[in-house]
Amino acid sequence: MKARVHVMLKNGVLDPQGEAVRHALGSLGFDGVNGVRQGKVVELDLTESDAAKAEAQVNDMCEKLLANTVIESYRVEMI
Amino acid sequence: MKARVHVMLKNGVLDPQGEAVRHALGSLGFDGVNGVRQGKVVELDLTESDAAKAEAQVNDMCEKLLANTVIESYRVEMI
Repeated sequence: MKARVHVMLKNGVLDPQGEAVRHALGSLGFDGVNGVRQGKVVELDLTESDAAKAEAQVNDMCEKLLANTVIESYRVEMI
Repeated sequence: MKARVHVMLKNGVLDPQGEAVRHALGSLGFDGVNGVRQGKVVELDLTESDAAKAEAQVNDMCEKLLANTVIESYRVEMI
C-alpha cells in the first residue's frame, strides 16, 4: 500500500516559511495573494497490504515521528 | 479561490530527507516501510475568483518560484 501524509501547521500558529513565500511572490509581481501556508507531504511505500491496518500504522507514525501534534495537524490518505 | 500545490522530487532524484525519515521509522520499530519520499505542500489563498485564471497564475508561480523544475515536479489542485 502507498500512503500520503499531509502535515500542516495548525491555524493560528505563525508560519514564517509561508510568509516568506508570500513576500517573494509579491516581489515577483504576483498580486492578489492573501495568504500562504507551507507544509510537508510524506509519501510512504508500505509492505502492509490491508488498507485499514496500513492506515492505523501510518497514523501511529504521524503521532510518533512525522508530525509535532502540538503545533501541526496531519491528514492521512491511502493511495 | 484557494489552491494547493504539491511539490515532490522527481523519480530518480535522491531524497536524503525521505531516507532519513525511513531510517528513523525503522529505529522506532516500524517495519515494512519500503520507501519514503518527502515533498512540500503550499496552500495559497488568492483574490482571483475565476478558477481557470487562478490555476494559470498558480502554475506560473510554480515555474518561477515554488518548484525547481529541474529536479522537482509539481501538481496544482484548486480547492
